Amino acid sequence: MNRRPLILLSNDDGYMAPGILFLIEVLRPLGDLVVVAPNTGQSGMSAAITVKTPLLLNLVSKEEGLSVYRSTGTPVDCVKLAMNQVFTERKPDAAFSGINHGTNSSVAIHYSGTLGAVLEACMNGIPAVGFSLDNHSFDANFEPARAYMEKIAMAVLKNGLPEGYCLNVNIPAIPELKGIRLCRQARGRWIEEFDKRKHPQGGNYYWLTGNFHNDEPEAEDTDMFAMREGYISVVPSTIDMTAYSFMENMKSWNL
Amino acid sequence: MNRRPLILLSNDDGYMAPGILFLIEVLRPLGDLVVVAPNTGQSGMSAAITVKTPLLLNLVSKEEGLSVYRSTGTPVDCVKLAMNQVFTERKPDAAFSGINHGTNSSVAIHYSGTLGAVLEACMNGIPAVGFSLDNHSFDANFEPARAYMEKIAMAVLKNGLPEGYCLNVNIPAIPELKGIRLCRQARGRWIEEFDKRKHPQGGNYYWLTGNFHNDEPEAEDTDMFAMREGYISVVPSTIDMTAYSFMENMKSWNL
Repeated sequence: MNRRPLILLSNDDGYMAPGILFLIEVLRPLGDLVVVAPNTGQSGMSAAITVKTPLLLNLVSKEEGLSVYRSTGTPVDCVKLAMNQVFTERKPDAAFSGINHGTNSSVAIHYSGTLGAVLEACMNGIPAVGFSLDNHSFDANFEPARAYMEKIAMAVLKNGLPEGYCLNVNIPAIPELKGIRLCRQARGRWIEEFDKRKHPQGGNYYWLTGNFHNDEPEAEDTDMFAMREGYISVVPSTIDMTAYSFMENMKSWNL
Repeated sequence: MNRRPLILLSNDDGYMAPGILFLIEVLRPLGDLVVVAPNTGQSGMSAAITVKTPLLLNLVSKEEGLSVYRSTGTPVDCVKLAMNQVFTERKPDAAFSGINHGTNSSVAIHYSGTLGAVLEACMNGIPAVGFSLDNHSFDANFEPARAYMEKIAMAVLKNGLPEGYCLNVNIPAIPELKGIRLCRQARGRWIEEFDKRKHPQGGNYYWLTGNFHNDEPEAEDTDMFAMREGYISVVPSTIDMTAYSFMENMKSWNL
């Protein structure tokens, strides 16, 4: 019986993105890998699911220890298809998503397709981790993160994660990383600056742009602070969004 | 100076959906309304944002106390456009999304476009509420919820909500509602059952279907339990997904 860990990989940049190719390279010694990732880029797709159109799922390649599937769906669709159509005999021992080209720290966890895949795996009871590098370019250098990613992956495979919890890992794009820090999600938001342009047929159209605003740049326990200091941030995250601390207060509303 | 509350409305079923028309009817006596909602249905779009194509935003109608805009974007895009292009002089006092045709209890908060709009308003510091009715049909009866929705909306306009908190309100589709209960998000997941069909050009294609599985059907403090008992569930929710309770435990990993 094969006791090597069985590992699901996905992302939101597409199955051929350099980030997922590097992730495959890092994880390959640790287990048998099954990639189920989108055909093309799905950045900003959050935990979106495809309800109005059917999905395609195709095997791209299969060799000892590595199968690659691509799908027309979102990152969440990919994980759903993986769990239901690919892992029919044995559930994966862990799921890893990324490496995203671009950071997903702070509230970006809500918009990110990379983290959408992580949340979906988490809902399915699979210990899941999202990796993101703070560099959007195609030729970003993932190498400095290799040893740290391996360490995190091995720890997750060894310890698992309690039901409903997952990890959001963000990596500064610098040549010499200082280490890993456990953090909380920084409070912040995008200050949207739509680029408004004249439509050739009249009226306007809008490109979403915007800059991120950190509401608490000096808070040392946040992911954004850790990254600025040169550390990889690990935010243990929960799919339970209930605001328990506010519930007591709300009772006075007498609804 | 106009001191009437200024209220943003959005949804994920489109600006002409019966659910948002009913919401307009309920809220109209409470303030000046600005609807910025998608052109067409965006169910399951979660907190997705549109990064690869530009967006259109068009004024549909404008009368005393009610302006309606539609956009080609997702629910989150609609809120972003509203905050940046429509509310240029005064921020809204509250935001309401829905009424969704279909429940968004438990983990559906992660997939729901209705709640995506709520999270976005919340990130922008606006007290925000998502309303969903447990009935997918076009001619769903929203009437039994009217007085309760009014009560919740008035309470939010009076009390506000602390930064980073929002409300996820789910309404059973029954003629006689018993009242309102403050709840936590039930633990559960979709048991996906893809409908696999033969593609006319060879291979397969997959329709996402699936049934929801409640992991804790007897937990009386959950939204799903409250709804089953005939109550409207209100889950105070937070955009901070950090798993604080697990952080201490994870320190033993020595990352």
